[in-house]
Amino acid sequence: MINTIWWKKGKVYILDQRKLPHKEEVIECKNYHKVTLCIRNMSIRGAPAIGIASAMGLALGAKSIKDRTKDRFFKKLRAIANRFLRTRPTGVNLFWAIDRLLALARKNRKKSLEEIKYILEKEAINILKEDIRLNKRIGKNGLRLINKPASVLTHCNTGSLATGGYGTALGVIRAAFSKGKIKKVFVDETRPALQGARLTTWELVHDKIPAVLLTDNMAGHLMQKGIIDCVIVGADRIAANGDVVNKIGTYTLAVLAKHHHVPFYVAAPSSTVDMKTYKGENVVIEERDPREVLEIQKRRIAPRNIPVVNPAFDLTPHKLVSAIITERGVVKHPSRKKMVSHFSSGD
Amino acid sequence: MINTIWWKKGKVYILDQRKLPHKEEVIECKNYHKVTLCIRNMSIRGAPAIGIASAMGLALGAKSIKDRTKDRFFKKLRAIANRFLRTRPTGVNLFWAIDRLLALARKNRKKSLEEIKYILEKEAINILKEDIRLNKRIGKNGLRLINKPASVLTHCNTGSLATGGYGTALGVIRAAFSKGKIKKVFVDETRPALQGARLTTWELVHDKIPAVLLTDNMAGHLMQKGIIDCVIVGADRIAANGDVVNKIGTYTLAVLAKHHHVPFYVAAPSSTVDMKTYKGENVVIEERDPREVLEIQKRRIAPRNIPVVNPAFDLTPHKLVSAIITERGVVKHPSRKKMVSHFSSGD
Repeated sequence: MINTIWWKKGKVYILDQRKLPHKEEVIECKNYHKVTLCIRNMSIRGAPAIGIASAMGLALGAKSIKDRTKDRFFKKLRAIANRFLRTRPTGVNLFWAIDRLLALARKNRKKSLEEIKYILEKEAINILKEDIRLNKRIGKNGLRLINKPASVLTHCNTGSLATGGYGTALGVIRAAFSKGKIKKVFVDETRPALQGARLTTWELVHDKIPAVLLTDNMAGHLMQKGIIDCVIVGADRIAANGDVVNKIGTYTLAVLAKHHHVPFYVAAPSSTVDMKTYKGENVVIEERDPREVLEIQKRRIAPRNIPVVNPAFDLTPHKLVSAIITERGVVKHPSRKKMVSHFSSGD
Repeated sequence: MINTIWWKKGKVYILDQRKLPHKEEVIECKNYHKVTLCIRNMSIRGAPAIGIASAMGLALGAKSIKDRTKDRFFKKLRAIANRFLRTRPTGVNLFWAIDRLLALARKNRKKSLEEIKYILEKEAINILKEDIRLNKRIGKNGLRLINKPASVLTHCNTGSLATGGYGTALGVIRAAFSKGKIKKVFVDETRPALQGARLTTWELVHDKIPAVLLTDNMAGHLMQKGIIDCVIVGADRIAANGDVVNKIGTYTLAVLAKHHHVPFYVAAPSSTVDMKTYKGENVVIEERDPREVLEIQKRRIAPRNIPVVNPAFDLTPHKLVSAIITERGVVKHPSRKKMVSHFSSGD
């Protein structure tokens, strides 16, 4: 399996996804600053992977706090947590992971600082392991929705590189492929950062799953020709009504899928579901550096003096979603009522 | 005005659009082979510009025929014409321009070979001049459809570079801007060949028309936010029922426009209307070199061993078209009946 992030002897290692598929370079993070940088510049990306990176980063930060009083330790820990919370505003797994570590630290406040630091380290590593287990369950749950060997369209990268391993939407595709249910995977290149062209194709070639690359503007043409049986994408945040915020271009695919009566599935761990976000419109859509649009692999493609829009995500209203797949099961035709009954129970 | 092709002292000069916006290089074509190459490799592109280039190329080819008997001259002329007809299969202006020159040569068969060659040269130059005049009329006709200062979305390049000058869809935008009816032009980058990012932005910056660049997968998001007032695109072929074949990605924009109740306009000279093509499905969609998808400005973006689809065009059914704008007028909500009554009359 491809590892995108791991913890080893008090350091965090991140596979530099900006260099893929050309080079497999690993970034060694000795301090949490470096981890925040990796998240910001998309050396590591994908909502679940960002959650893991921020948990490991916070654990790394905790170890670096030299203060010996609890008050000062917790004050600094919160400050480091805030640094992570400010890296990227849209995906919710980041907030979920940081909250989880902070709550655990508070719960163990009575223990020694050394113990608390150790607990945080274990928990961060645990979030990674847990994520892989959850993804395999998402894969199994998604399997039910694919009845015959299907040609599947996917967007961005939702595989091992975007998660602890295995993947969300790509996890469903992996699970389906292992059961002979995948004819072909059509991969949107996913401008501006080309996660589809660079990362998803790389994972699929690695796993010998038949894949075809297309530019983002070809999906409509393929659906019109009846080539696409279903669309499966991931999510960066799912609101309480089932609205999905995901990589820019997802909404366009959902509209196209609706127009062509093609099922549109969203796969994500339940930590991506944010019941505190009432609807998708309330999610802050990150606007990124114009150079991502103006340059491709550091080569300028447009003239000087041309303004750019670069929203990193878009919003797909729940009415366009055929089903949300998480490790807890499948919510078909999501609505607020169904989401509340499915996700508000249990923990 | 920007010139993309011109005739001078028995040679054809073509601005190499593959190098724009970085370099303004001109290709000197001393023989017709070089012109066919420029069309094939997209040094010159855009259905009307390809029509002009093939007319000039055929005139150049006629001059190179050394045979002194009429029969052999006409046989060779037809052979050269066939070479042009095989360069690119989808746009119809190429076929229209070659047919026009061949018919003119036949009509003047009784004249001397030198005279026939001279007539063909004048006609090719005339097609260029005529195209600019037609585009200005298209602009005027399109103007009626824009009532208030509008934010317009366009795709690919339909400007001076795609035509004899002024442009089709971009001609409408130029005309509307001159009347204060353009707030902003949103330009799809138009993968794989990036005609929007490289060429349309370059023309708009040149003309000081406010423009914003976006990746192809952002249009849905902008429409959802209510930012786009209308879409205007060009066409490579318009069928007898009003179906539009145009640059890949056009169909996706048409579906998005329909979903958001945004008017979707197509602007083209009447030579793009092919009444002999019954419906859009009958048009051959050119499949181009996979390297256009796999490489951007000669830099590889995807792993080895990944198959690719690369249809150069797609089909927008007439039901998604709000109006077709030509130099003859505007056909709103085109249907076979309206198209026949509008385009079968006159010449």
